[in-house]
Amino acid sequence: MTDLYPTRVEGDATEIPRQDAVVRGTPDDGPLDRAQLDGFDRDGYLTFEDLVTPEEVEQFRGELRRLAADPAVRADERTIIEGTSQEVRTIFEVHRTSEVFARIAADPRLVGRARQVLGSDVYIHQSRVNLKPGFGGGDFAWHSDFETWHAEDGLPRMRTVSISVSLTDNYSFNGPLMIMPGTHKTFVSCSGVTPEDNYKRSLVMQNAGVPSEEILTRMADEHGIDVLAGTAGSAVMFDCNCMHGSNGNISPYPRSNIFLVYNSVENAAVEPFAADRPRPAYLGARDVTPVG
Amino acid sequence: MTDLYPTRVEGDATEIPRQDAVVRGTPDDGPLDRAQLDGFDRDGYLTFEDLVTPEEVEQFRGELRRLAADPAVRADERTIIEGTSQEVRTIFEVHRTSEVFARIAADPRLVGRARQVLGSDVYIHQSRVNLKPGFGGGDFAWHSDFETWHAEDGLPRMRTVSISVSLTDNYSFNGPLMIMPGTHKTFVSCSGVTPEDNYKRSLVMQNAGVPSEEILTRMADEHGIDVLAGTAGSAVMFDCNCMHGSNGNISPYPRSNIFLVYNSVENAAVEPFAADRPRPAYLGARDVTPVG
Repeated sequence: MTDLYPTRVEGDATEIPRQDAVVRGTPDDGPLDRAQLDGFDRDGYLTFEDLVTPEEVEQFRGELRRLAADPAVRADERTIIEGTSQEVRTIFEVHRTSEVFARIAADPRLVGRARQVLGSDVYIHQSRVNLKPGFGGGDFAWHSDFETWHAEDGLPRMRTVSISVSLTDNYSFNGPLMIMPGTHKTFVSCSGVTPEDNYKRSLVMQNAGVPSEEILTRMADEHGIDVLAGTAGSAVMFDCNCMHGSNGNISPYPRSNIFLVYNSVENAAVEPFAADRPRPAYLGARDVTPVG
Repeated sequence: MTDLYPTRVEGDATEIPRQDAVVRGTPDDGPLDRAQLDGFDRDGYLTFEDLVTPEEVEQFRGELRRLAADPAVRADERTIIEGTSQEVRTIFEVHRTSEVFARIAADPRLVGRARQVLGSDVYIHQSRVNLKPGFGGGDFAWHSDFETWHAEDGLPRMRTVSISVSLTDNYSFNGPLMIMPGTHKTFVSCSGVTPEDNYKRSLVMQNAGVPSEEILTRMADEHGIDVLAGTAGSAVMFDCNCMHGSNGNISPYPRSNIFLVYNSVENAAVEPFAADRPRPAYLGARDVTPVG
């Protein structure tokens, strides 16, 4: 298969225009209207106030607490524990291990939006719940998710969206998601070869797949940086190729969210484009059964 | 001398109501009007758009670049160099080592405001220029400056203000100053004994003088958190006892500022209240010659 988006290359990183449509559905396909679809096409993301109810937020938070306290979950390789605090930071594949999270992952409010944008049935490429503690929660440097999913999981085209449902209020000061709007239309090829089992380190700190500071500066100058504040229960849907990141969090207020990655069933993973073998299925699913 | 604000104590940290007036001057004394003085009394800080001109900003930035490139400055103990990048992060006592910074430190636009709030002549307790790089500049945890200046430098009363002049644009996303407005009216006594030569570590990471997370959470719930964005040339004046801090900065945009601490000549430093000996004079001046 032709590699439309070569990355992890020797020499300088380059920018490649996006080869794939951003929005494939129409307003008739449902829940998003023309303005929203146009906004997603232009900015690469949309936010939704109150996508889930306060009662659901409470239920999800309870489920997250339950999982984080379960010794079996803590010992599972799909759980990332922060070194110094020994607190749970991320739990992957929760749509398979939790009935509560399986239900929201298949909920029409989420799946309908993903289907409409991607123009087909969708399956879950990755799911996780994240906990970013207050009083010093870490940052996450700028990156495109697609760069990793293409290089290390083998997603061939840009036909994937993420939906993040906030379980806490997001302020500008507690390390919220930041997106450079419009950057989803350019693929930033990254220099450097993927180390073996890169995922074991890259979940904590990115090594390969890091765009150059020169390109990031130019992109920020051109596109600006949107800081996505919002209340618990709100959500953001963003394109797989958005340049995004988050600052650390010294505030007392932790952040947690449910993160679901929907991929078009017509964009199933093939062999990785820049790694010896695919990452484990809990990071990049190989099972393309449609959801919802 | 009675210690009105005991800190670095054994056992749990406590909260002590402020014993000192926040504002001593009147609108007749000079540049600040009644609303501004009331605002400073209530919130513990004031911001000023365009306190200095764009030409001055350029001059200050040039002077900062010159100092940061000077091998003698880099080797000076008053210069803090970041370990990994080997870049200059802070240069202290610039009002004595740079004519340009000496001039702005004595400028009526700054000194007049400090005098008016503090109700007396003032001298410079500390001066510095700060550089917070983009792409991963570090955070600074919540603290009251007065706690340190009282414990380690011997400032007896709360009669000190800081003025920070921005040399770069400050956005919500590049690690700007954050203040919990109104916290200057409560002294948070901190637990733990001051280690010898604490300043050698505390400029990089706070060890002693750290308020408890419980108190910080309650303060944030009660007072909120103000994020002080502003353009280059703007300034913020804040009370010595404001609870403040800053997040890290993954954005491409560095932050730099000139930071001047004005203390009332009637509040000269005595022996430290919670340390064996005072910090070096470049961190806490012992010379109380009035400025401006």
